[in-house]
Amino acid sequence: MEKIMCPGFLFSGIESGLKKKGGKDLGLIYSEVPANVAGLFTRNRVQAAPVRIDRDRIQSGICQAVIVNSGNANCCTGDRGVRDALAMAKAAATQLGISEDSVLVSSTGVIGEPLPIEKIETAVPDLIKTADGEGIYNLAEAIMTTDTEPKVVSGQGQIDGKVFTVIGVAKGSGMIRPDLATLLCFIVSDISASSELLKEMLQAACDVSLNRITIDGDTSTNDTVLLLANGESDIIVKSTVHKKIFQRVLDEVVFNLAKLLVKDGEGATKLVEIIVKGAETDKNARLVADAVAHSNLVKTALFGEDANWGRILAAAGRAGVSIEPDKIDIFFDAVQMVSKGVGCGKSAEAQATEVLKKPEFAITIDLHLGNGWAFVYTCDFSVDYVKINADYRS
Amino acid sequence: MEKIMCPGFLFSGIESGLKKKGGKDLGLIYSEVPANVAGLFTRNRVQAAPVRIDRDRIQSGICQAVIVNSGNANCCTGDRGVRDALAMAKAAATQLGISEDSVLVSSTGVIGEPLPIEKIETAVPDLIKTADGEGIYNLAEAIMTTDTEPKVVSGQGQIDGKVFTVIGVAKGSGMIRPDLATLLCFIVSDISASSELLKEMLQAACDVSLNRITIDGDTSTNDTVLLLANGESDIIVKSTVHKKIFQRVLDEVVFNLAKLLVKDGEGATKLVEIIVKGAETDKNARLVADAVAHSNLVKTALFGEDANWGRILAAAGRAGVSIEPDKIDIFFDAVQMVSKGVGCGKSAEAQATEVLKKPEFAITIDLHLGNGWAFVYTCDFSVDYVKINADYRS
Repeated sequence: MEKIMCPGFLFSGIESGLKKKGGKDLGLIYSEVPANVAGLFTRNRVQAAPVRIDRDRIQSGICQAVIVNSGNANCCTGDRGVRDALAMAKAAATQLGISEDSVLVSSTGVIGEPLPIEKIETAVPDLIKTADGEGIYNLAEAIMTTDTEPKVVSGQGQIDGKVFTVIGVAKGSGMIRPDLATLLCFIVSDISASSELLKEMLQAACDVSLNRITIDGDTSTNDTVLLLANGESDIIVKSTVHKKIFQRVLDEVVFNLAKLLVKDGEGATKLVEIIVKGAETDKNARLVADAVAHSNLVKTALFGEDANWGRILAAAGRAGVSIEPDKIDIFFDAVQMVSKGVGCGKSAEAQATEVLKKPEFAITIDLHLGNGWAFVYTCDFSVDYVKINADYRS
Repeated sequence: MEKIMCPGFLFSGIESGLKKKGGKDLGLIYSEVPANVAGLFTRNRVQAAPVRIDRDRIQSGICQAVIVNSGNANCCTGDRGVRDALAMAKAAATQLGISEDSVLVSSTGVIGEPLPIEKIETAVPDLIKTADGEGIYNLAEAIMTTDTEPKVVSGQGQIDGKVFTVIGVAKGSGMIRPDLATLLCFIVSDISASSELLKEMLQAACDVSLNRITIDGDTSTNDTVLLLANGESDIIVKSTVHKKIFQRVLDEVVFNLAKLLVKDGEGATKLVEIIVKGAETDKNARLVADAVAHSNLVKTALFGEDANWGRILAAAGRAGVSIEPDKIDIFFDAVQMVSKGVGCGKSAEAQATEVLKKPEFAITIDLHLGNGWAFVYTCDFSVDYVKINADYRS
C-alpha cells in the first residue's frame, strides 16, 4: 500500500471493543501544532451528541486532535450522550496534554444505544501511543461501519515552488443523501489558511462532491466533514491564485472520496452518474437529477441491468419542474435510448444493456429546454441493500 | 366469492395476449345508461396517452364505458400511442354502439413499448360479449400487473329509505406515492349526482385514502381514478345531508381499496400506519409522516422486524420541519419505545419487537409541539421488492 502522509499529522486506529463483530473502532488525528479548522455538519434536525459539541467548539477555528469511534453513533442518547462525548474528547486531551477545547469528536454506528465510554477511555492511551505519520489507513479502517473497504485519497500541489499535501479519509455506506455533508470525512493539509477561508473552500469542494452523491436518500444524524490545516509546508494560502491552486487539489481529493463512497454504497454493484442538461435552470436540472438518482424503481432496474428508460422518464416527470416529455433524449454513456420522449428500439436497447453491465457509466438526460445542467452520482439498489439493512443491529 | 354488483353496470375481464406471462389483461366497465363521471389523474409531468385522452374527454362529465388494459402502459409511445389509445376506445364504442366520446381508456404496465392494438381490437367483441353484472372480479383481475390478488371493495348506504351501492376496483403494487391518485382505481355507484359534485366528493375521498399511501415513493405516469354514477337507484344526491351520507360510504370504499393496495405492495409483508401528532401544523405532521413512510432505512428495518427507532427519528429529522428531538415520543402500537428522544430500554424493545411481527400495526410519533396531526400508510421494503423490480420487463 502506498505510503500516504501529510507533514505534522499523526493518525491511528485501534480496536476498543465497540463493534459486535470486532475490528478497529477507535481513531485519532493529531496535529503536532494547533491547526486551523473548518467543518460542515448534518442538516438533520436530529443531531448526535458529538455533532452538537463540535459545532460549538469549531467556532474557535482551532483544532489539534480529532477522536472518532465507529460501532455507535452516540445519537438520541440524551444528556448522557453529551457527557460521554465530552468524556471521550477529554480522555484524548488529557493523554495528549492539550486543551480540551482543541479536541473534536465524532461517532458513527447504531443510533440510540448508550456509548460504552469506559471501553473508549481504557483504549485511549494505546490509541495515542500507536499514532503515526503513516497511520492513515488505520484511521480509515477504524471509522468503517458497513463499508467494505477503507477510503483514503491524497493529492499534492505546488504554490510558489513549495509542495503541499492534502489527504482525506471518509466512511459512508448507508444513510447517505446529498444533504451538504455525508457521514464522516476528515481532510488534513499542511498549508496555512484562516479558518474562514478553509470553510469557504471546504464548502465549495463539498458542493461539487459530497453534495452530489446519494446512496439511499436518508440523511445521517452524524454527518461531519472537517478540514484541518497546520501550516507545516510554510505555504500561506491567501491570494486568489493560491486559493485556486489549493481549491483544485482539495476538490479532487473530496470528489474522489465521494465517488469511493457511492461505489461502496450498501449492496451497491454499480456507480452511475446522472447528468441532466438542457434544463431551464441549473436548479431545475438538479431537481430532475435528484429525482432520478433517488428513484427506487430506477435503482432496482440498474441492479437488474435492465435499460428501463420509462422509469427514468417517470422519475423526471415527478421532479416538480416543468418538462416537455416529447423533447427529452436519454443516453446510456454514448448510446441513445430515447429520442424526443420515445424509445429508440431493440438495437439501441441491446447496446444500452451492454453499457449497464459496466461497473461505472453515465445516464444523460437532455431536456432540450435551456442551458441548465447538473450531475449527481448514485448507485444501484440491490437485494443486498435490503439484507444489510434488515438486520443492521443484530 | 361474494357477489358484488351495482345496478345498471356490467363488467368484464378477459385475456387478449398482452402479458408475457399470460392471464387476463383487458377489462371493461359498461353502464347501461350514460353515467355522470369525475376523474383524478397523475400529477407526473410524463403522462400516458390514455391519461391525456381521458383528461380531455372527461370535461363533458359523461361516460358510458371504460376500457382498460394491463401489460402495457402505452406511455412514452409518442403519436402512435395516442392513435392506439383512441383506437382502443373506438373499438369499444363501435361494438357497444355508443359515442366514442363517452368511452374512457386506461392502461397499466411497462412504459415505453408500443401497445399491440391489433390484439386488443381482436379481443373487444369477446370482451363485450362476456360483460356481466357480476363480472367485477374479472375486471379486477384484468387490471393487475405485479398485484398478487384482485382488489374489489363494496359499500352500501341509504338515503330517504332507498338503498345505494358503491363498488370499486383498484390495482397497485409499485410506482406508488401519495401524489393525488394511485395507478388505477375505478368506482361506480347507482346514485345520481352532477359531475362537479362527483369530482368534489372523489377528491375528498382520495385525500384521506389514496393520497395517504406510499409503496416505493415513485409516481406512476398512468394514475387514474374514476367515479361513475348512473342514477339507477333513483337517489339524487344534492342536499348537504345526502352528500354526507354518500361521502361516508365512498370514503370507506376508497380507503379500504387504498389499504389493500399498500398491503399488496410489491414484496410487502407488512401494512404500517405512520401517525404523527403534536406537530405545529397538520402540514408539518404530514411532512414528517411522509419522510418516515418513504425512508428506505425505516422500511428495510420493518422488513427485518427490527425496532430500529433511531432510523425513525433520523427520518423525522430530515423532513424539513422544525422539531425538537428531546421532546419526541415514539410508540409501536401501544408500546412506548422512545420517551423524550431517548430509547425506553430492553424491555420496551422486546415488546416492540413482538408488535413488529404482526402483519398490521401503527407507529405513532408524538412531536409534542402543537396539535397538528397526520397519518400515512406504508409497507415494508423487502428483498422481494428488489427482485420484482430488477427484472420487471424480462
